[in-house]
Amino acid sequence: MRISKEQMQQTFAEILTRYGFSESDAKDSAELFVQNSLDGVYSHGVNRFPRVISYLENGYIKPQAKPSVEMSFGSIERWNGNLAMGNLVAKQAMQRAIELAKQHGIGSVAIKNTNHWMRGGAYGWQAADAGFIGMCFTNTQPNMPAWGAKDRRIGNNPFVLSIPRENGQHVVVDCAMAQYSYGKIEEAKLSGRNLPYPGGFDEEGKLSNDPAAIERTWRVLPIGYWKGSSLSIAFDLIAAVLSGGNTVSEIGKLGGDEFAVSQVVLAIDPYRFGGKEDAEEIINRALEDLQLSIPVEEGGTVSYPGQRTYQTRQDNLEQGIPVADTVWKTILSYREKQS
Amino acid sequence: MRISKEQMQQTFAEILTRYGFSESDAKDSAELFVQNSLDGVYSHGVNRFPRVISYLENGYIKPQAKPSVEMSFGSIERWNGNLAMGNLVAKQAMQRAIELAKQHGIGSVAIKNTNHWMRGGAYGWQAADAGFIGMCFTNTQPNMPAWGAKDRRIGNNPFVLSIPRENGQHVVVDCAMAQYSYGKIEEAKLSGRNLPYPGGFDEEGKLSNDPAAIERTWRVLPIGYWKGSSLSIAFDLIAAVLSGGNTVSEIGKLGGDEFAVSQVVLAIDPYRFGGKEDAEEIINRALEDLQLSIPVEEGGTVSYPGQRTYQTRQDNLEQGIPVADTVWKTILSYREKQS
Repeated sequence: MRISKEQMQQTFAEILTRYGFSESDAKDSAELFVQNSLDGVYSHGVNRFPRVISYLENGYIKPQAKPSVEMSFGSIERWNGNLAMGNLVAKQAMQRAIELAKQHGIGSVAIKNTNHWMRGGAYGWQAADAGFIGMCFTNTQPNMPAWGAKDRRIGNNPFVLSIPRENGQHVVVDCAMAQYSYGKIEEAKLSGRNLPYPGGFDEEGKLSNDPAAIERTWRVLPIGYWKGSSLSIAFDLIAAVLSGGNTVSEIGKLGGDEFAVSQVVLAIDPYRFGGKEDAEEIINRALEDLQLSIPVEEGGTVSYPGQRTYQTRQDNLEQGIPVADTVWKTILSYREKQS
Repeated sequence: MRISKEQMQQTFAEILTRYGFSESDAKDSAELFVQNSLDGVYSHGVNRFPRVISYLENGYIKPQAKPSVEMSFGSIERWNGNLAMGNLVAKQAMQRAIELAKQHGIGSVAIKNTNHWMRGGAYGWQAADAGFIGMCFTNTQPNMPAWGAKDRRIGNNPFVLSIPRENGQHVVVDCAMAQYSYGKIEEAKLSGRNLPYPGGFDEEGKLSNDPAAIERTWRVLPIGYWKGSSLSIAFDLIAAVLSGGNTVSEIGKLGGDEFAVSQVVLAIDPYRFGGKEDAEEIINRALEDLQLSIPVEEGGTVSYPGQRTYQTRQDNLEQGIPVADTVWKTILSYREKQS
């Protein structure tokens, strides 16, 4: 089925209000869930909503909590997320990073004790919509083995980069340090398909495209093998040191669910020195050259990061957001429940 | 053969002076080449020296040039590298980023029109040695196809992250967005070995570990397939927009050699909010947990990024830096030449 943006927005907001959010927070958080869904990231939009409700029920997410500024110096701040809703905290932190970047050229907020931001790319788009370069990273629970290890002690720690364009068709990269998410591996298994590229190791220690084999070892593959493993470790340490918050290892000791994570959001003013026209020209020339690439598949296209997201958004705005009937039914049922 | 740090340092400095560097610049640049060699990154240390000499001879690198500060605002600056020696420019820029981070918590310098920084990790170590978190990225000539493309229009754009530790055993990641460097692919081919993991596509469009097959297509693999391709594009755009310099595409139009690149170096004060002891404790706890990993190979170890570099450095300090006889003979010959 397809649900319109407006209907989804209203439904989510209504439910979040029931679960203890202020009306304004419910609206803002709902908007982020809807935006992720519009952009085709259903795993961290509509499909994630039921899990968020369970986190609210378990008390991991505090609907009334607000992030607090712990320390501030020049162009950096340290926040405590106080276990508030992760997408609200990340959005507010990026808004503050943008303000700091307006004053100082660059601004950064490190947040401890916050919750899953859902889709990191949302804050990249947010920075770009405001005309700023965005950079964000988060840690997670331990969900990937370090390079050379069998057991999962590092996170897939997503990393986001964004560059604004005047037409709103920003360049946005949002990528976890694992080659495939658990969701993607599970989805391939359920549909009986192999992964298009190796996603982990099988029981014999060989690279495998077989989701079932990977699920037996849970040795999922970092991007670039040793490289993604190293990047994951570095993002974790930077987020934990700057925020004074938990590392991946410590999140793993909280009991198995993912909360109280550490994040960094950063904004840079791209127009401070060269102006907007110069930046636009540089970006457009580079993207034009990219699109002159000879595609591997005849008639194929080579896209820049964020391009398909933008197209999906236009499609979903027109046709409504695709949702599995069962998921939507589950979500509607929360309107009856009292938390 | 093995050459001592001191002998290599003196030889490089002598040659660079002959090629037009001031004594102090020759000494500083030589030190960086030696440090890269000590750290085991021979490809961007002693083995790279002959190519740098040819770049000096071709006039791509201007030995007397100095970078200039074009604009400055709050905690960000834009520099023109003026085609000076890349490793000197990057080192000075990181030094400036550290000064800005002392004043504002974070500092960033974007540089246009500079030369190859040799090994980006050097500036990560530099930031960490000064007690700062470092982040750097550079663009390059077009040397990798974008995801879905056959021809090379994006760069391998290395990315560096570093986190300081009191014992000098910093956490440092230095990774290009290509799975393997051209040097690694060539080395495997010459020694008749396959790459340990797929490094590109063969003529049939299949992933391949065979260096000769990859050399026939030059479809080298980005880390994480589409992810490394996207990151490469984003780093390129950010470096070019902030510096006002060339993108990868424009570097490719300069005639085939790699010069006039764009770079960003960034430093963050990790001790501003929590102090050094807190940071040390967070890092040590995380690295201890990492090293509890169950190794894939019995008796194997799981290391943190930078750990092996530090060990190699100790070995090479004791035993001298390994160099192929022919390479060293070539280098010594430059002492006789007059540029």
